[in-house]
Amino acid sequence: MAFKTDIEIAREAQKKPIQEIGQKLGIEPADLVPYGHDKAKVSADFIARQAGNKDGKLILVTAINPTPAGEGKTTTTVGLGDGLNAIGKKAAICIREASLGPCFGMKGGAAGGGYAQVVPMEEMNLHFTGDFHAITSAHNLLSAMIDNHIYWGNDLQIDSRRVVWRRVMDMNDRALRDIVTSLGGVANGFPSQAGFDITVASEVMAILCLATDLEDLQERLGNIIVAYTRDRKPVTCRDIKADGAMTVLLKDAMQPNLVQTLENNPAFVHGGPFANIAHGCNSVVATRTALKLADYVVTEAGFGADLGAEKFMDIKCRKAGIAPSAVVIVATIRAMKMNGGVLKQDLGAENIDAVNKGCANLGRHIENIKKFGVPAVVAINHFAGDTDAEVDAVRDYVKSLGSEAILCKHWADGSKGIEDLARRVVEIAESGEADFKTLYPDDMPLFKKIETIAQKIYRADEVLADKKIRDQLKQWEEAGYGHLPICMAKTQYSFTTDPNRRGAPDGHSVPIREVRLSAGAGFIVAICGEIMTMPGLPRVPSSESIRLNDQGLIEGLF
Amino acid sequence: MAFKTDIEIAREAQKKPIQEIGQKLGIEPADLVPYGHDKAKVSADFIARQAGNKDGKLILVTAINPTPAGEGKTTTTVGLGDGLNAIGKKAAICIREASLGPCFGMKGGAAGGGYAQVVPMEEMNLHFTGDFHAITSAHNLLSAMIDNHIYWGNDLQIDSRRVVWRRVMDMNDRALRDIVTSLGGVANGFPSQAGFDITVASEVMAILCLATDLEDLQERLGNIIVAYTRDRKPVTCRDIKADGAMTVLLKDAMQPNLVQTLENNPAFVHGGPFANIAHGCNSVVATRTALKLADYVVTEAGFGADLGAEKFMDIKCRKAGIAPSAVVIVATIRAMKMNGGVLKQDLGAENIDAVNKGCANLGRHIENIKKFGVPAVVAINHFAGDTDAEVDAVRDYVKSLGSEAILCKHWADGSKGIEDLARRVVEIAESGEADFKTLYPDDMPLFKKIETIAQKIYRADEVLADKKIRDQLKQWEEAGYGHLPICMAKTQYSFTTDPNRRGAPDGHSVPIREVRLSAGAGFIVAICGEIMTMPGLPRVPSSESIRLNDQGLIEGLF
Repeated sequence: MAFKTDIEIAREAQKKPIQEIGQKLGIEPADLVPYGHDKAKVSADFIARQAGNKDGKLILVTAINPTPAGEGKTTTTVGLGDGLNAIGKKAAICIREASLGPCFGMKGGAAGGGYAQVVPMEEMNLHFTGDFHAITSAHNLLSAMIDNHIYWGNDLQIDSRRVVWRRVMDMNDRALRDIVTSLGGVANGFPSQAGFDITVASEVMAILCLATDLEDLQERLGNIIVAYTRDRKPVTCRDIKADGAMTVLLKDAMQPNLVQTLENNPAFVHGGPFANIAHGCNSVVATRTALKLADYVVTEAGFGADLGAEKFMDIKCRKAGIAPSAVVIVATIRAMKMNGGVLKQDLGAENIDAVNKGCANLGRHIENIKKFGVPAVVAINHFAGDTDAEVDAVRDYVKSLGSEAILCKHWADGSKGIEDLARRVVEIAESGEADFKTLYPDDMPLFKKIETIAQKIYRADEVLADKKIRDQLKQWEEAGYGHLPICMAKTQYSFTTDPNRRGAPDGHSVPIREVRLSAGAGFIVAICGEIMTMPGLPRVPSSESIRLNDQGLIEGLF
Repeated sequence: MAFKTDIEIAREAQKKPIQEIGQKLGIEPADLVPYGHDKAKVSADFIARQAGNKDGKLILVTAINPTPAGEGKTTTTVGLGDGLNAIGKKAAICIREASLGPCFGMKGGAAGGGYAQVVPMEEMNLHFTGDFHAITSAHNLLSAMIDNHIYWGNDLQIDSRRVVWRRVMDMNDRALRDIVTSLGGVANGFPSQAGFDITVASEVMAILCLATDLEDLQERLGNIIVAYTRDRKPVTCRDIKADGAMTVLLKDAMQPNLVQTLENNPAFVHGGPFANIAHGCNSVVATRTALKLADYVVTEAGFGADLGAEKFMDIKCRKAGIAPSAVVIVATIRAMKMNGGVLKQDLGAENIDAVNKGCANLGRHIENIKKFGVPAVVAINHFAGDTDAEVDAVRDYVKSLGSEAILCKHWADGSKGIEDLARRVVEIAESGEADFKTLYPDDMPLFKKIETIAQKIYRADEVLADKKIRDQLKQWEEAGYGHLPICMAKTQYSFTTDPNRRGAPDGHSVPIREVRLSAGAGFIVAICGEIMTMPGLPRVPSSESIRLNDQGLIEGLF
């Protein structure tokens, strides 16, 4: 029997009107702002009225370090949400929005897979409800106002060589990475070096995801540092007077989007910051709203647990005052084998030794999660070729660490394939076992925070940073930014900064190449290695084959 | 008594759910794609099912040459729609969407004014239903794919100096007019001169407004000429294989938007091409859909009748196979006085001589409209300071030309202030008097078409164009583009190419500075004078004072 593709399954979805989905969470139709019949925003007024509700339990889905074999973190997030509903719990899902640009390079990023998907999949991968377009507009309005300020006399005495605010576009366009603007004469301004990042890499995106309401949004936007004067004084978005208009542009985008799973359960899809130079979680507003409306909220963090879960705990939870009651670590037999040294083309064959060897990566993540005071359970996302012996090997290994691994077949079977995990997650969440704590306190010196993450999570011996970087961190501490958390920008493929080092290495060094202050988002980015903030298109981009077919359906997007 | 501002009036609107507005035109809720509770797109499926309906009558609202005194063309379009409904006719309005970028420079462009407005005004001036964002994305995808093609080997042998497809952004950003892209080394491509236009100036915008359906849209997108090879062969969007993905991006944007007037009558607001380098009318799809659903459809063309109405007739009507049954020419006493030589600060005083003198401009437009075989009536858009004697002077003048001028008070009184005009328009439309013809046939040589417009409409003695331009036109004729209509790009302030020459000058020369082929939109642009395709922000942009107030309402946008 041939498997159906994700898009075939998604197209067969028996979607319910979004008003019915809203009502499952007690949202009346008047409190939904519809975008078509299957998407809606939850109105800010309604959200404000829920402030007094008791919070549900938050479940974080994270994963081992990603491998080319695929882990299915979003698929498991969606599946677990359906599973919790299937066992009679009132549960909602919170995931990130997809970026438009990359859909035209490689195949589009679906929202889950198999029978654990969120729909409408095509629209979620295209314009959706316009949030990213609003972020692009707000970001670029600030850019235009900075240059305009300089053009008309530069009262703020901005050093035009020290404008740090670039422009953004939701497109993979390498030609825009490094540009010179304002050529062509006096009327076009002062020629400057400039460039574009992809919209998800915008600090505005990170701010939208961390802001608690419109007032907080405007405050954070105002705090963005856009440039420096000749004597190195920061110039902010507030100085440029762009914060009000940017807030107006983002007013609708701040309202979380509601869609549904294939099993007609509610899913919030809102925000999507780059997981490498930002914290990589869906919006605080969506997560908080979901917690006010559902008894269980399943959400995910970007990349593997060393990067994504750490930033989820130390940035999002810290800032939003929320805490997970349980963590699910997604692993696959195939990924264990790759971590154990098997090449992708050899993944088909049973290989218990490799599974056992690769489990070290999983074990390290289990240990790490415990450092945040939250109990973890492992979800083995089942693939058709996995053998029982391989599954048992992972189960035994996890058991030996005092934890539990549960086989999940949500990809093939939907909610009924993941009910065991759902029940276990409820047990853990209700046990009150979780005692969440961040990895480091606010008042720890910035460099010490970096060292703490590197030592406790990455198991590095040392952090390498030259004097310039240490001085910069000290300067920020003196300027009042010392309380900010660290947003690590590191390869997701390894605990180390070398993407090729799989498994559970230790004793390595973490070199910090650069640090950046995101004063609006409220974190300091520590960059280890190259970070690409504007992707390019491949030789044969998927956009060449994306088109409407004779039935008006989109082909080539997936 | 202080007058209420447009925004105050708009905020007091008793809006009905958009489904009720749709039902006035026989559109069921399931055939509307809602965007919030007061905006919707009309589904493409529904539109396709109306093909067999009889067409209603089309009424074009145009104006004298604009002056700083203001004419109120959109206000009159909206008012007339309400007026027709008030006298018991089934009428709909078709106007253009507003551009986001300019709202942050000067005050936002409201949709009508006083008691003749379309709502929701704020959203229409911000993201609305995302159409312009979709156009921006589609346009820039093509840009990225062109550079990507060159980057990966340039199989089409594009001369990178002859890429004519720029990028777009819906923002007033002068710094992006002239840029150099792909700096920074091998991985970023080949450094090139490039630039951004504002989104409304995109050929994709003009195409969206002229395409009849998705198939025609893709065909036209494919025809766009994006570059030339070293031996000057054109390279099209189809060669780049971007037409399919661009169509997918524009799929939703092709569906016309439905909103309502203050009096709860249906208004289609769809498309908004730059009236100087494009044809400046709302979309063909919206106009055709409205004609299938209403007995009377009131629409407008950009700028004064010499530019906007001519392009409406010779481009939009010709291409879409539609024809107006009546034309309304909007004039104001104040504008007549300015055309008669009065300065703006002196407009408050009665000045019959100046009115009489300024009427020459109006008279010229009345004559011109008759050349298209369509009867015209003049709407005097009443301002509080107009005296009876001034109004009578215009009335008498228009009567002397065998036409009629009707005083309209829709700004102050809504539909009941414009019922006389509504009744007269119905009389004309039902008389069958209109016998529409274009100004020139398809098979006239291109340069002769330009001369025909210049002589018959602008009353110029001659068209000046150097050999290079004439040769270029000949070359296009040989390449099979000779049948295309001309899209004149000229100042809107005068019949001549000198914006300061008011009234009704003749015997002047029309110099053609440049010609451009818009092979996708299907017209040839003849540029007389400087055309700015990327505006800048003023010294104190309105964005500095745009913000949400304590009640969450937008301040400073209007």
